[in-house]
Amino acid sequence: MIKVGIVGGTGYTGVELLRLLVSHPHVELTVITSRSEDGVAVADIYPSLRGHCDLQFSVPDNNTLSQCDVVFFATPHGVAHKLVPALYENGVKVIDLSADFRLQDAELWSEWYGQPHGCEALLPKAVYGLPEMNRAAIKQAQLVACPGCYPTSVQLGFLPLIENNLVDPEYLIANAASGTSGAGRQANVDALHSEVSDSFKAYASAGHRHLPEIVQGLHLMQSPDQAKAKLTFVPHLLPMVRGIHSTLYARLRVDTAVDLQTLFEERYANEPFVDVMPAGSHPQTRSVKSSNMCRLAVVRPQGDDMVVVMSVIDNLTKGSSGQAIQNMNIMCGFDEDEGLRQVALLP
Amino acid sequence: MIKVGIVGGTGYTGVELLRLLVSHPHVELTVITSRSEDGVAVADIYPSLRGHCDLQFSVPDNNTLSQCDVVFFATPHGVAHKLVPALYENGVKVIDLSADFRLQDAELWSEWYGQPHGCEALLPKAVYGLPEMNRAAIKQAQLVACPGCYPTSVQLGFLPLIENNLVDPEYLIANAASGTSGAGRQANVDALHSEVSDSFKAYASAGHRHLPEIVQGLHLMQSPDQAKAKLTFVPHLLPMVRGIHSTLYARLRVDTAVDLQTLFEERYANEPFVDVMPAGSHPQTRSVKSSNMCRLAVVRPQGDDMVVVMSVIDNLTKGSSGQAIQNMNIMCGFDEDEGLRQVALLP
Amino acid sequence: MIKVGIVGGTGYTGVELLRLLVSHPHVELTVITSRSEDGVAVADIYPSLRGHCDLQFSVPDNNTLSQCDVVFFATPHGVAHKLVPALYENGVKVIDLSADFRLQDAELWSEWYGQPHGCEALLPKAVYGLPEMNRAAIKQAQLVACPGCYPTSVQLGFLPLIENNLVDPEYLIANAASGTSGAGRQANVDALHSEVSDSFKAYASAGHRHLPEIVQGLHLMQSPDQAKAKLTFVPHLLPMVRGIHSTLYARLRVDTAVDLQTLFEERYANEPFVDVMPAGSHPQTRSVKSSNMCRLAVVRPQGDDMVVVMSVIDNLTKGSSGQAIQNMNIMCGFDEDEGLRQVALLP
Amino acid sequence: MIKVGIVGGTGYTGVELLRLLVSHPHVELTVITSRSEDGVAVADIYPSLRGHCDLQFSVPDNNTLSQCDVVFFATPHGVAHKLVPALYENGVKVIDLSADFRLQDAELWSEWYGQPHGCEALLPKAVYGLPEMNRAAIKQAQLVACPGCYPTSVQLGFLPLIENNLVDPEYLIANAASGTSGAGRQANVDALHSEVSDSFKAYASAGHRHLPEIVQGLHLMQSPDQAKAKLTFVPHLLPMVRGIHSTLYARLRVDTAVDLQTLFEERYANEPFVDVMPAGSHPQTRSVKSSNMCRLAVVRPQGDDMVVVMSVIDNLTKGSSGQAIQNMNIMCGFDEDEGLRQVALLP
Repeated sequence: MIKVGIVGGTGYTGVELLRLLVSHPHVELTVITSRSEDGVAVADIYPSLRGHCDLQFSVPDNNTLSQCDVVFFATPHGVAHKLVPALYENGVKVIDLSADFRLQDAELWSEWYGQPHGCEALLPKAVYGLPEMNRAAIKQAQLVACPGCYPTSVQLGFLPLIENNLVDPEYLIANAASGTSGAGRQANVDALHSEVSDSFKAYASAGHRHLPEIVQGLHLMQSPDQAKAKLTFVPHLLPMVRGIHSTLYARLRVDTAVDLQTLFEERYANEPFVDVMPAGSHPQTRSVKSSNMCRLAVVRPQGDDMVVVMSVIDNLTKGSSGQAIQNMNIMCGFDEDEGLRQVALLP
Repeated sequence: MIKVGIVGGTGYTGVELLRLLVSHPHVELTVITSRSEDGVAVADIYPSLRGHCDLQFSVPDNNTLSQCDVVFFATPHGVAHKLVPALYENGVKVIDLSADFRLQDAELWSEWYGQPHGCEALLPKAVYGLPEMNRAAIKQAQLVACPGCYPTSVQLGFLPLIENNLVDPEYLIANAASGTSGAGRQANVDALHSEVSDSFKAYASAGHRHLPEIVQGLHLMQSPDQAKAKLTFVPHLLPMVRGIHSTLYARLRVDTAVDLQTLFEERYANEPFVDVMPAGSHPQTRSVKSSNMCRLAVVRPQGDDMVVVMSVIDNLTKGSSGQAIQNMNIMCGFDEDEGLRQVALLP
Repeated sequence: MIKVGIVGGTGYTGVELLRLLVSHPHVELTVITSRSEDGVAVADIYPSLRGHCDLQFSVPDNNTLSQCDVVFFATPHGVAHKLVPALYENGVKVIDLSADFRLQDAELWSEWYGQPHGCEALLPKAVYGLPEMNRAAIKQAQLVACPGCYPTSVQLGFLPLIENNLVDPEYLIANAASGTSGAGRQANVDALHSEVSDSFKAYASAGHRHLPEIVQGLHLMQSPDQAKAKLTFVPHLLPMVRGIHSTLYARLRVDTAVDLQTLFEERYANEPFVDVMPAGSHPQTRSVKSSNMCRLAVVRPQGDDMVVVMSVIDNLTKGSSGQAIQNMNIMCGFDEDEGLRQVALLP
Repeated sequence: MIKVGIVGGTGYTGVELLRLLVSHPHVELTVITSRSEDGVAVADIYPSLRGHCDLQFSVPDNNTLSQCDVVFFATPHGVAHKLVPALYENGVKVIDLSADFRLQDAELWSEWYGQPHGCEALLPKAVYGLPEMNRAAIKQAQLVACPGCYPTSVQLGFLPLIENNLVDPEYLIANAASGTSGAGRQANVDALHSEVSDSFKAYASAGHRHLPEIVQGLHLMQSPDQAKAKLTFVPHLLPMVRGIHSTLYARLRVDTAVDLQTLFEERYANEPFVDVMPAGSHPQTRSVKSSNMCRLAVVRPQGDDMVVVMSVIDNLTKGSSGQAIQNMNIMCGFDEDEGLRQVALLP
């Protein structure tokens, strides 16, 4: 039994952590923080947790948090920069769901997030928490930066193609679409039901903060002699709550004779949370709703030299809180799928 | 051609007024106000209006507004109280979509809205704008208080029963449900897509502000010798944008032998915007979406002494902006359905 | 470990049984039948089950099914009538999710379902599977008839009022609304997304098949000297997938001084799957989505003599498959909440 | 006043034609056919039309239809092949909303639709009804083949780029998403609300019937010396009713210095139903809901050589019935936007 704390528990990644952690057999939740809801019972804000969680929100406090074995940050960017160092020094394992430690290049981070990087010192210690790329490093890590939701789905879809150098890395396209929970639980006119429901749009086509994160990951998949991967990434907003669907496009190299279906199946054969669907499938987001699974399908329309990969995840689970717990399991030596074996909710 | 102004045009009732008024053959829109969006083009906020409306929002100004023949108020409560008197004095016809002049009892208003009534002087001049009950008075009015959305659907459903004294007035129930556009375009966590979508709940069951308005209307339908109508009103929030559905319950008097279907059909035979559906029908909200129609059906389950009325409107059209224009048409001597003949959008 | 079979596994109650049973620690799923999908892998129809269930659908066969300890029927009405007797004779515990054994009066059943009752002989053995009313009988039962979805939510809401004789039993109203999964997975124009989405309507107001079932239950709650309960029941169709919300209305007896909040809390204090919310609450359907919980709130608007109860369940879980498993747990002596401890999915 | 008939009026394109035509000042609707609903009042199936349309469905009859000036076909593919020749011979103007005359190559049609082309003789007379490409020919036509919904949005988005030879024609990508009304009003498990709602998926990625139609159009935009356009087209299904959003990707030629925003604005400056949004915009499908408008935006992410075009239409209006009426207006010499000036429904 490990002691676990959550910093910033009022948002959707916070409640998703709670949903999963209250059933985790090796976890004792000891503290959950929120400045704005100090003293309020968790179950008063999230009635789904009535009977499952007796905790109250409290103001984040270093002493209390330092008594935890693991602390999750489910905070807006910038917060972990400030609070992580003290915990790190006290030997606490930190799993950050925010963007604070995702980019290894502090300057690049600063450009995209519009503020100075608040914790460059710990960057060398931060391990990018995509287990399918990085499992060995995660096992040794004390500080894990959980990938963003879009980056998870896009990287898992491109991985077999890029690491095998099968496609032109300079013309990669990720056309992705997310449910509204990805925008968080902030009062915001653009996220009102009456604004979002029954409509669909692209957004941030000129540049989304997940772009540099994905590109960083693509570069890590490449061998040094390749032309650096370039990506066009256009996110869209879906009139639904949970789920990300990424449709990826890449041009196969002229001489490619590889069987893509087999390639994908073999690459992910031992991954507990990546499911390569049979040839001809089109994964639906609902097939992973509430589960930690990523489902992929790969197709080569009309047998031409364009390859299309479809990748679906639940943005709050594999795209955030579920993957965070997967990282915790790896870091703590638990079964990797402990507490994450739920069947997706369908219908 | 009359000159028309709108005070408070950035909300959903504002854009609905614009949608309908830009096609009205007798209307020239001359001014639309918003303090927060001063100088912004209407079509920048509502791209649906690109090519239909060249106006910019401006700060409300008495001189400009006084040059209008008709001014609509699509404002939060309290605003009309302050701005209407000057316009009224200048002879402008005022159609108020807010709650400011709906209740004839200033003290009651103050109780439910938590602030003093700001314009008691004009209450005797204010005419309640439900044409099906009040057409003659509206024709003469200079100040019309448009009914709330729930009150429109509930009153039209109860009207034939109450004015004919067919039911026990002390046990009336209105179980109503509204789309999210009824909550307006305010940044508010409770109205986020992720909070509202795929869920359903009652709210304000202990007392909603539309309750005293409905009860006032029910009393006006009654003859003086009857026991005063009492209503239990429970509103619900639907995971959809437009539409109100009211399910009304009342106990028929023991001696009632009236044919309810005929009663309803005859009562509304000449009403352009009330459609009594054939016996056995269940009106859908989508059958009135974007139109000014109220559709009703009446049933007596198992032939028992309980009568059930179902009443649907589009909360933004017959429930607000469309009915406001219907009132304008009556006040200005236009055809009552001028600019309001659109077919509902289905599917 | 018990051997469990499912008859009729392709519908939504079937896949919901699977979702829950594959994680149940005492259950080994051995057979799942479907005439139309004979030989097809379950996971091919429901990709959410990939990796969780290796079974294929097979044609129902008495020998195979008789080797099970428990068999669930998730079939259209009429099927269980035919197949249950042979299993019953072989000592198999049968849990029927269909309507076949819900009504004790075979003639009444025949009236509402438009065909003769196919298995009157077993009616005396059939126990109505609402644990909150009937736990002791369920424990002894070999054949359990699981309640319908509406009846579950309505009966749990009325129970404390009726069994304590606090309200006028002749004027009970249940205004209920269900998500579309309640209509099942049948090709049907009226259930198309384009027909149902973004709209709301009542249906079957003249008489729904769940009405006699609810009334039967209300009568069982009453003491013999009371006037027989009468109910007006109007179901509605919500533009969402899962969830039932019932809004119940009843008139309190003149002399009632009981504290309703306390009454409800005490009645359900030891029930694992009924949660009485704090006074002033409005339960949302999403607070029980994917869970076996029923959440209730009770209110007396304006302190008047009308009591309003709000009751929410997930129609596929507590309203069907979850409750079926709760019954199995009781019948087999497992912990009543075994396999049913999931937190509701929110958002 | 012209006499207008509709063949196949029970589907969504049929009811959308009715919605628009009942308000068209130059149109008298005289006949609407349906084999399955012979004798049924239109308003009984579509209550939105109560008070707007008194017609009953009748079995298609050549004599009756031949008395029309214009006949619309809103039928499944194959039907127009059989019925059009007789009408054509009688001088009736035919506007076909189905796929029957969209492809000029009968063999290609046969390949994609899995049956022989039933009316090759009239192919030379059939004019492709995309006014923005083909207005002059439409003006002279007696038989117009209305474009598919996806092809309308994709072709309008690519048109300025292709006809000016600004992009590599061999690597064009159209990632498109449609509301569920595009699938029609057929009983079909895959289109049930419970299957589609709250989920998102690609479909037909290996080849959709609209692909050859789009490619045919792209080829017509090209000058003869260019490499023939090739397209990867992946359609997706949105959990909403109306709207298509196409996200188009193309590589700019190395030497391109053209200002894309100006190019698009100038190309469509005189088009009544194409609206180029300001730079930086992301068109929402709801901004065109119920209107005949196509809204476009063009962006060059990070100033790179990839151009992204976003194109939205209402699939039932500009994508089908509205565009059909636009064609009628052109063919009959009416104002091109007659009957099509509605403001989009927002919210």
